[in-house]
Amino acid sequence: MPGKRYLMAPGPTPVPPEVLAAGARPVLHHRGPDFRALMRRCLERLRLVCRTENDVLLYTASGSAAFESAVVNLLSPGSPVLAVSAGEFGERWVALATAYGADVHELRYAWGETPRAGDVRQRVEETSAEVAFLVHSETSTGVVADVQALAQAAHEAGALVVVDAVSSLGAVPLETDAWGLDVVVAGSQKALMTPPGLSLAVVSPAAWERAGRSTNPRFYFDWARMKTSLDSGTTPFTPAVSLVASLDAALELLLEEGLEAAFARHAALGRACRAGAKAMGLELFSPDEDRSAVVTAILTPPDVDARELVLSLRDRFGITVAGGHGDLAARLFRIGHIGYYDVFDVTTALAAVELLLAEKGVGIERGVAVARALEAYRETAHVAT
Amino acid sequence: MPGKRYLMAPGPTPVPPEVLAAGARPVLHHRGPDFRALMRRCLERLRLVCRTENDVLLYTASGSAAFESAVVNLLSPGSPVLAVSAGEFGERWVALATAYGADVHELRYAWGETPRAGDVRQRVEETSAEVAFLVHSETSTGVVADVQALAQAAHEAGALVVVDAVSSLGAVPLETDAWGLDVVVAGSQKALMTPPGLSLAVVSPAAWERAGRSTNPRFYFDWARMKTSLDSGTTPFTPAVSLVASLDAALELLLEEGLEAAFARHAALGRACRAGAKAMGLELFSPDEDRSAVVTAILTPPDVDARELVLSLRDRFGITVAGGHGDLAARLFRIGHIGYYDVFDVTTALAAVELLLAEKGVGIERGVAVARALEAYRETAHVAT
Repeated sequence: MPGKRYLMAPGPTPVPPEVLAAGARPVLHHRGPDFRALMRRCLERLRLVCRTENDVLLYTASGSAAFESAVVNLLSPGSPVLAVSAGEFGERWVALATAYGADVHELRYAWGETPRAGDVRQRVEETSAEVAFLVHSETSTGVVADVQALAQAAHEAGALVVVDAVSSLGAVPLETDAWGLDVVVAGSQKALMTPPGLSLAVVSPAAWERAGRSTNPRFYFDWARMKTSLDSGTTPFTPAVSLVASLDAALELLLEEGLEAAFARHAALGRACRAGAKAMGLELFSPDEDRSAVVTAILTPPDVDARELVLSLRDRFGITVAGGHGDLAARLFRIGHIGYYDVFDVTTALAAVELLLAEKGVGIERGVAVARALEAYRETAHVAT
Repeated sequence: MPGKRYLMAPGPTPVPPEVLAAGARPVLHHRGPDFRALMRRCLERLRLVCRTENDVLLYTASGSAAFESAVVNLLSPGSPVLAVSAGEFGERWVALATAYGADVHELRYAWGETPRAGDVRQRVEETSAEVAFLVHSETSTGVVADVQALAQAAHEAGALVVVDAVSSLGAVPLETDAWGLDVVVAGSQKALMTPPGLSLAVVSPAAWERAGRSTNPRFYFDWARMKTSLDSGTTPFTPAVSLVASLDAALELLLEEGLEAAFARHAALGRACRAGAKAMGLELFSPDEDRSAVVTAILTPPDVDARELVLSLRDRFGITVAGGHGDLAARLFRIGHIGYYDVFDVTTALAAVELLLAEKGVGIERGVAVARALEAYRETAHVAT
């Protein structure tokens, strides 16, 4: 039998069979009534998931392209901006805004730290930043920032707020309108349970106003061009129609579960994963709190190379987890639990890690990780087991 | 029974069931060995289809984004360029280069005209254009330009040559290396028989050299960033892995058929469509020659509104053909025959058109369109019927 595969990285994530099936239906013409109805429904569902009445713009592109759309539509060369970074994706905001000639100030934390609202307020004031770029869930570390507090601080100091919600949207609470987020960007391939290839930007009236004054050149990523077409149910350029069909089917599943139930499930999955890792005596790199709900970053014992562990999981068991970056590469591995996951996915990952560590002579009471993970999951009131 | 749908627009085009199935397989992680092997094979197959040893860069984006990648990587503000336009997609080159501040000169023909090499040479010389933008198959009119001759003229006058091959690649002969094309851009959703959402840019050493000097800001579309990742079998940003799987499966089908056989089939389909239209007494807008192989543009009788015809085809029979643009909207309709088409798709479209025109009282000898189309197709030596 061909090796069964387990996709347990923090993105792309597993896609439900019915979502894959929706993407395998015959291709629709993007100017016809069937597609227009599909697109309109999909955008309406995205608004519900984003909890917004703002415009949702849907791009055929990776998540980073939605980041870029925010940079090119909001900034002009020389615009003072603040990028808050505590990991890989915070640094991407820096790289993007720098590539477009902005006057980029960075509020930089060590990887794994949690950004603080007071720091954001102070740095926006000091730099007169007009836009603050935030990361909601920093996939590289498992830290979920308190975007509500950070956004409030940035607003009070006078900046618009742009939020990377790529790995948080649909998994942890995100209130676009209630928190006054000016722009939210995300991708299809995380908690939205869709193959990668679509990304979205949610644009507030204040962001539209600023975009009207931006002088950065743009065409494919131009928000106004996209909005004009989407308002009539289509796109300015031929979109990935099969991925839109998949996304629509996945959003239906997510809304059937209910957003609050999905948030509770992700919190419980995080709790289960952390409980299992701790039961094996492993040190957590992610914060041990409910907000850490989409990916759990774990340190290997000092004498076990995390890179080797990740390769063994893949080559012996077909399990894909993620490694760490830079200085953390030798000790860090990350188990994703975003989207189409239940607790038995978490226990599968933990059982395989336990087996490999035990083989390496790490003293572990066998079976305890799975047992503790299931107990921790069951403690969640919102989820019946 | 739900209405059966017939996608007969010049893109997106119908996708073979085995290609849809490939895209419905479980999602692969884009940094893992399964995906790297898939991506490498897919790029190698694209090189065969493009007949090139140059770098093929594959983007998660619509075809127009590959156009834009050529503009942002090759040009700087003020760069003198020539855009050759004789339809919608030629005009897109003008809009794109203008958006990025190039000094854009336009060699503009009426829609439906065929660009001439002598004109290109003269205008490149007059304007000192450093880059000439050409369209191989102008989807809006059905005209396929003699890109070999146009490219030679542009080169001799001192310009690099960028070719839009979105609706020609895999359908009509295109020799990237033998014709010395500096950049070729295309999309997945035409003769490559894949859902929309992937696009490609083929980049020559001369184009790389020029890209190194371009000052346009860029990030997602930056060629160098893409090449660095692709050289190790992955991409800088999470790609549409399911579309890559589909594209790979479709390229396998195309290469099994053989490029020359595919070119002959498309030429024969064009011949069949034109023969059928003429048999109904309709006037062709596309040139009546074998080069007109991917879409046939047809004029309705003066008293029949083409827009109404297109809507009736769709609403009564589930057949999607394309209309015309601008001044031509009232008289023009276009039958696409790109990619996963055989002659019975053409006869289906013709039979439906005949039925609607006959109902409107247009004098047509019933059945003659289908019969003539089949005869014309059979005359093709390369295709057994």
